[in-house]
Amino acid sequence: MRSITLLTDFGTADYFVGAMKGAILSVNPQAVIVDITHEIPAQDVAAGAFTLLAAYTTFPAGTIHVAVVDPGVGSSRRPILVSAGGYVFVGPDNGIFTHIYDRETTFQAFHITATEYFRHPVSTTFHGRDIFAPIAAAISAGVDHTSLGTPIPDPIKIAASTEPHILHIDRFGNLITNITRNAVKEGATLVINGKAISTLRNFFGEEVGGAEEPFAIWGSAGFLEIAVNGRSAAEILGVKRGDEVHTD
Amino acid sequence: MRSITLLTDFGTADYFVGAMKGAILSVNPQAVIVDITHEIPAQDVAAGAFTLLAAYTTFPAGTIHVAVVDPGVGSSRRPILVSAGGYVFVGPDNGIFTHIYDRETTFQAFHITATEYFRHPVSTTFHGRDIFAPIAAAISAGVDHTSLGTPIPDPIKIAASTEPHILHIDRFGNLITNITRNAVKEGATLVINGKAISTLRNFFGEEVGGAEEPFAIWGSAGFLEIAVNGRSAAEILGVKRGDEVHTD
Amino acid sequence: MRSITLLTDFGTADYFVGAMKGAILSVNPQAVIVDITHEIPAQDVAAGAFTLLAAYTTFPAGTIHVAVVDPGVGSSRRPILVSAGGYVFVGPDNGIFTHIYDRETTFQAFHITATEYFRHPVSTTFHGRDIFAPIAAAISAGVDHTSLGTPIPDPIKIAASTEPHILHIDRFGNLITNITRNAVKEGATLVINGKAISTLRNFFGEEVGGAEEPFAIWGSAGFLEIAVNGRSAAEILGVKRGDEVHTD
Repeated sequence: MRSITLLTDFGTADYFVGAMKGAILSVNPQAVIVDITHEIPAQDVAAGAFTLLAAYTTFPAGTIHVAVVDPGVGSSRRPILVSAGGYVFVGPDNGIFTHIYDRETTFQAFHITATEYFRHPVSTTFHGRDIFAPIAAAISAGVDHTSLGTPIPDPIKIAASTEPHILHIDRFGNLITNITRNAVKEGATLVINGKAISTLRNFFGEEVGGAEEPFAIWGSAGFLEIAVNGRSAAEILGVKRGDEVHTD
Repeated sequence: MRSITLLTDFGTADYFVGAMKGAILSVNPQAVIVDITHEIPAQDVAAGAFTLLAAYTTFPAGTIHVAVVDPGVGSSRRPILVSAGGYVFVGPDNGIFTHIYDRETTFQAFHITATEYFRHPVSTTFHGRDIFAPIAAAISAGVDHTSLGTPIPDPIKIAASTEPHILHIDRFGNLITNITRNAVKEGATLVINGKAISTLRNFFGEEVGGAEEPFAIWGSAGFLEIAVNGRSAAEILGVKRGDEVHTD
Repeated sequence: MRSITLLTDFGTADYFVGAMKGAILSVNPQAVIVDITHEIPAQDVAAGAFTLLAAYTTFPAGTIHVAVVDPGVGSSRRPILVSAGGYVFVGPDNGIFTHIYDRETTFQAFHITATEYFRHPVSTTFHGRDIFAPIAAAISAGVDHTSLGTPIPDPIKIAASTEPHILHIDRFGNLITNITRNAVKEGATLVINGKAISTLRNFFGEEVGGAEEPFAIWGSAGFLEIAVNGRSAAEILGVKRGDEVHTD
């Protein structure tokens, strides 16, 4: 029993997600399909990469994670699969698996070439249905993923600073940094866009610091986050994804 | 293992979709339920009909498709089921299965009358839960669908031109025509609302024609579509669903 | 086969729902997970309580209902489980199960203390993933729910009038009262905010009363509802949740 998760920017109003699920069940009627989200902002590969990072390790080993945020669909960008951490990841080679490469100690990437497992005719606009879904379904049905393509040494990564920075801004305007617990000393002050954040809350509702002040909190994805109660920290602090964070 | 798909205009914020799923599982706890979408615009039967058309053939034979866009719920409109193409369709008799009748070479329609399979008491406002979900669940559990009603020769169809026209406008403003590949000659020019569309792209990101020009593309539902990069083609061209398309 | 339902205010755009499902499948890979909704308005415990009330009895006995609208996450509020009506309910002790206590003739509530079933490390911000999901999964896998905590006599209830009042306002502005069929005499007139509602429709599209007049209708959740065709009854009548309704 290997579940298949889906993460896309397709939204849930159209037929796209249903068509991917149909394509999976047509290959493996026993497949267990789990939605992570279909509301990644359109074509925002970095947001998809973060959301996958935050969710993938909660699933049992063997899970097949399909991630389709794919502005280059139909062009020469490669369809790939990645084996890492006991999981298989399936999607376009555009950086959506960047954090998997960084987080897992080893990984193997493959350019998917086994066209006999594709859904035919393969469209130029919907590889989620025609390539990624049936490939994931084949793996869930027992096909060895290493037989589905050729190893590649150089899957594409999103360029990012190795210094502390804003990794993701969620839809509430909370800032998720790339700072983990062992990367910051206790009592450090964060400075973002010239503004010092000196309050660390243990939980969102904790009454520490001013009610309208930005505060830091250890988020559930394992990173330090900056939030403002009921408001957008991104707007208040005037920052965007990728901006540097200083820890003093 | 016969999956049940759901397509409605209920949205996902209320209890309606959950109640349909509960009603299914109460009849058949083994049922596999797959959402196509619950975000059909309220009471827009034609939009539901298109979305079902674009998704249904991706599912394996035997799948039971439940479609509930039902402005006439509680009135005298008939609950029906339709057998076609190896699938069973369950929903109100208001035209939501129009494209199934047109697409499949043969179909059988039945007025659902087997009240012993309904969820009682049957409300006047929520036949998705009280009639369509339990009927679909009964079929998935092995009840012969032909035993659930009486054949009808005349299920309702949405009136539509047989000439080329705009079949659907998606939420991005892309125009999906009813033109299929074998219905248009290569090199033909499309004219919509007096405006000629002369560029055909192979994929969305292809650099052909002006960046802000409307272009045609073969969409993943099998129809010719008209799109404008990052903007609403419907707004730019000033067209609405049903408008004629000329191919010269 | 015990299904697990999920009802939260997490939305579906972020990783939260996916992470809960992953946490469940990591404990019980055979678990059947059903979404009721993730679009409860943020931190609106009363709206979550109503939506759970309207959906839970459609599910088969044995179903495990997880409800996480949890503004107090990380504080001293108790995680609880409740056994009632053949179901098990899992969530925070903040009133979200109020209607279960009122509706079911008997119930047993437990303060969840079996930390060995939690997902570790337990965060201070996401008990949906770290406590409620794995506890539900353990029960679905056969763990006796009475072994997971200590009985409590006093789970928290939302304070509400026992008189007729507006129990819930849905996103269309329809008013759901707490009035059931046996609580009102035939021919009674409803008065809300000084305005008499004298029309009772049998179904939404029935042509009774003025097209723009508020009308009463027996809703699918079993309560009397007040609606206005295509408009917000809440706005037109100027009422809010909790307001009294007079039946004369």
